[in-house]
Amino acid sequence: MLSLIPVENLPLIRQGDPLASMFVHALERAGTAPRAGDILVIAQKIVSKAEGRIVPLREVEPSNEALMLAKRAAKDPRVVELILRESREVLRVRPGLIVVEDVRGFVCANAGIDRSNIEQQGEDEEVALLPVDCDLSARRIRAELHELTGVWVSVLINDSHGRAWREGTVGVTIGLAGMPPLWDRRGDVDLTGYTLEHTVLGLADEIAAAASLLMGPASEGIPAVLVRGLKVPGGDGRATDLQRPKELDLFR
Amino acid sequence: MLSLIPVENLPLIRQGDPLASMFVHALERAGTAPRAGDILVIAQKIVSKAEGRIVPLREVEPSNEALMLAKRAAKDPRVVELILRESREVLRVRPGLIVVEDVRGFVCANAGIDRSNIEQQGEDEEVALLPVDCDLSARRIRAELHELTGVWVSVLINDSHGRAWREGTVGVTIGLAGMPPLWDRRGDVDLTGYTLEHTVLGLADEIAAAASLLMGPASEGIPAVLVRGLKVPGGDGRATDLQRPKELDLFR
Repeated sequence: MLSLIPVENLPLIRQGDPLASMFVHALERAGTAPRAGDILVIAQKIVSKAEGRIVPLREVEPSNEALMLAKRAAKDPRVVELILRESREVLRVRPGLIVVEDVRGFVCANAGIDRSNIEQQGEDEEVALLPVDCDLSARRIRAELHELTGVWVSVLINDSHGRAWREGTVGVTIGLAGMPPLWDRRGDVDLTGYTLEHTVLGLADEIAAAASLLMGPASEGIPAVLVRGLKVPGGDGRATDLQRPKELDLFR
Repeated sequence: MLSLIPVENLPLIRQGDPLASMFVHALERAGTAPRAGDILVIAQKIVSKAEGRIVPLREVEPSNEALMLAKRAAKDPRVVELILRESREVLRVRPGLIVVEDVRGFVCANAGIDRSNIEQQGEDEEVALLPVDCDLSARRIRAELHELTGVWVSVLINDSHGRAWREGTVGVTIGLAGMPPLWDRRGDVDLTGYTLEHTVLGLADEIAAAASLLMGPASEGIPAVLVRGLKVPGGDGRATDLQRPKELDLFR
């Protein structure tokens, strides 16, 4: 059996907050503690906040490019300026949506910045950018959890992404430590004795989607989920390994 | 807490097998029974088999179109013939891969037919096509489960799909009954008081991905998973509601 345990009743996160110890205490209150083999999935937004990736919109001066793109996308030019700074390439634009390859290599809407990221309304509007290096953030939190508990868990940072062809956003992994992001089962044999040929599972993304089921709006209601009871292969990797190289992507 | 309970130790499924009662008995052996609010996720392959959607490749005569496409895709022309019969439109081709919009409207590789679907090797090779109407299959199984147990559960049929931009396949929903496939949270308010604007969750696909974590190679090891403890909104719908209309898709 696979269990997903919500890590809840955390205070609103501020810059510099020690996430790892806050998770340990929250789990303690829920009557458990991290165990070897557990996977802790953390919502991107609280990692961004703890790392101080908050930008007050009044400090953002939109470039001409941002002003023009904001018109096409019907978005706040200051938010568009931040999207451009956080992107390598703009792939598609339509009102309300700018699909980019972000500076980390993820194809996503608005470089992970959107209105539901806004902290306050009115004059003091702030948005949260993604962590600078989400894999590094995951590795740090994993090391801190080990220091606090003596246990190595895997750590994923998830975000909600829209998709080609299908409606609705789903949780995906943008940062990872302590497990492989993909599970290559091409050598495995199915029950009829046939060797599987094309099966590389998007393991970390399936875990991210599962955890996302428990996370609330804008992911501060339940900002982290402990996944317990899943057998994953050994090894390590990075969330960026989930990015399909541009030249191999038939839909870019 | 969310629990995912594997439905295991089913025999290999054959045409006409009463899936609903097999699930109930397997759950009984595992010490539980379906409860109101549970979501049963079933691997596509066993639904296809129970519905007799098995085609012996020796009975398939490839058309000229299939022969040409098979060359480009480096695939068995008989399998390509079936892919074409099961598709509305071929979107992309490269060696080993034909991405189509299938007759149900899903964008997927090989119309859901691939080598790991092959039942036997040698002269008697057989492949499994997707159920004719996956939503109808889900509704039938849901009604049968209600008849057997007096309980209404939600039923999803899942398959593994590749994606644009990201490596690895993930579980997605191709058939659904008893719950809405999407969760429109655009009216909800986040913890800072901000009304979420763009958040429509791909609820059924996240559940399909979660269940897929427990399903084995070619999904007959653990061909179904019971999801317990998830609060989903009321209502009903179809998996086809997850399809983004072609004219709204920026990546077709």
